[in-house]
Amino acid sequence: MQGTMNLPGTGATDPPFEVRPVGFVRSGVKSSSEAPKQGALSGTEAEIVVSPEYIEALDGLSDRAGKIVVLCWMHEADRKILKVHPRGKEDRPERGVFSTRSPHRPNPISLHTMELLEVRGNVLRVRGMDAIDGTPVIDIKPHSPELDG
Amino acid sequence: MQGTMNLPGTGATDPPFEVRPVGFVRSGVKSSSEAPKQGALSGTEAEIVVSPEYIEALDGLSDRAGKIVVLCWMHEADRKILKVHPRGKEDRPERGVFSTRSPHRPNPISLHTMELLEVRGNVLRVRGMDAIDGTPVIDIKPHSPELDG
Repeated sequence: MQGTMNLPGTGATDPPFEVRPVGFVRSGVKSSSEAPKQGALSGTEAEIVVSPEYIEALDGLSDRAGKIVVLCWMHEADRKILKVHPRGKEDRPERGVFSTRSPHRPNPISLHTMELLEVRGNVLRVRGMDAIDGTPVIDIKPHSPELDG
Repeated sequence: MQGTMNLPGTGATDPPFEVRPVGFVRSGVKSSSEAPKQGALSGTEAEIVVSPEYIEALDGLSDRAGKIVVLCWMHEADRKILKVHPRGKEDRPERGVFSTRSPHRPNPISLHTMELLEVRGNVLRVRGMDAIDGTPVIDIKPHSPELDG
């Protein structure tokens, strides 16, 4: 059974944990078949629309030079898949999902490092986003070359 | 209200989403007051203990040279906090949590890039982990200098 490990925690902090979207992706890429496999390299522009209730959490983001890391919830993923053919190529041997960047994984959280072009109210304009239109955003962090590089 | 945005999705994929731990951190660092603020730079060794039900998902991880990215659930965080003093320093002006790496954020997911030293069964030995002992691990990915750098 999943989620039954003996973990510390009481009450509200016990697993499973609840993730709530803080925004969504607005992009010209409408389906996963259109999505570039390595969008970070493609230079595609897109927007991150943050829910107004979280607008305060964006304070100071536009002062920071550099990239941001956006975490998304890949709502179309199959969470039961533990092995995949890398990049969907059937001729390549299957690997465990933790050794790939496949969307299919027990917790379908994706990681996108991108250039922040502009913050306008609750909308971030970004370059290098490969998630499709409508993808739920669950976190935004400043990228740190020291921590993440 | 949180989690009520108009997002695409039906049934099981509707928010809020459920995150289940896939393992936990085993570390000599027992409390957040002991934890280095920038553990990635400290060279601390620790272990990621993966729940046996997910062991297949680790296949191929040890063949890959380089770093891994580990996502944790910061179960001690306060999810209601939207602004913080950076690095907890009261003399620094408050910033929105999305412009900091504070554990306090709407979805308390942390990102740790570290060196993978060894995979032994369901245990990963790593260097550069700053999460405290017992922290739930929710995802493991290979680090990509191209995507994440």
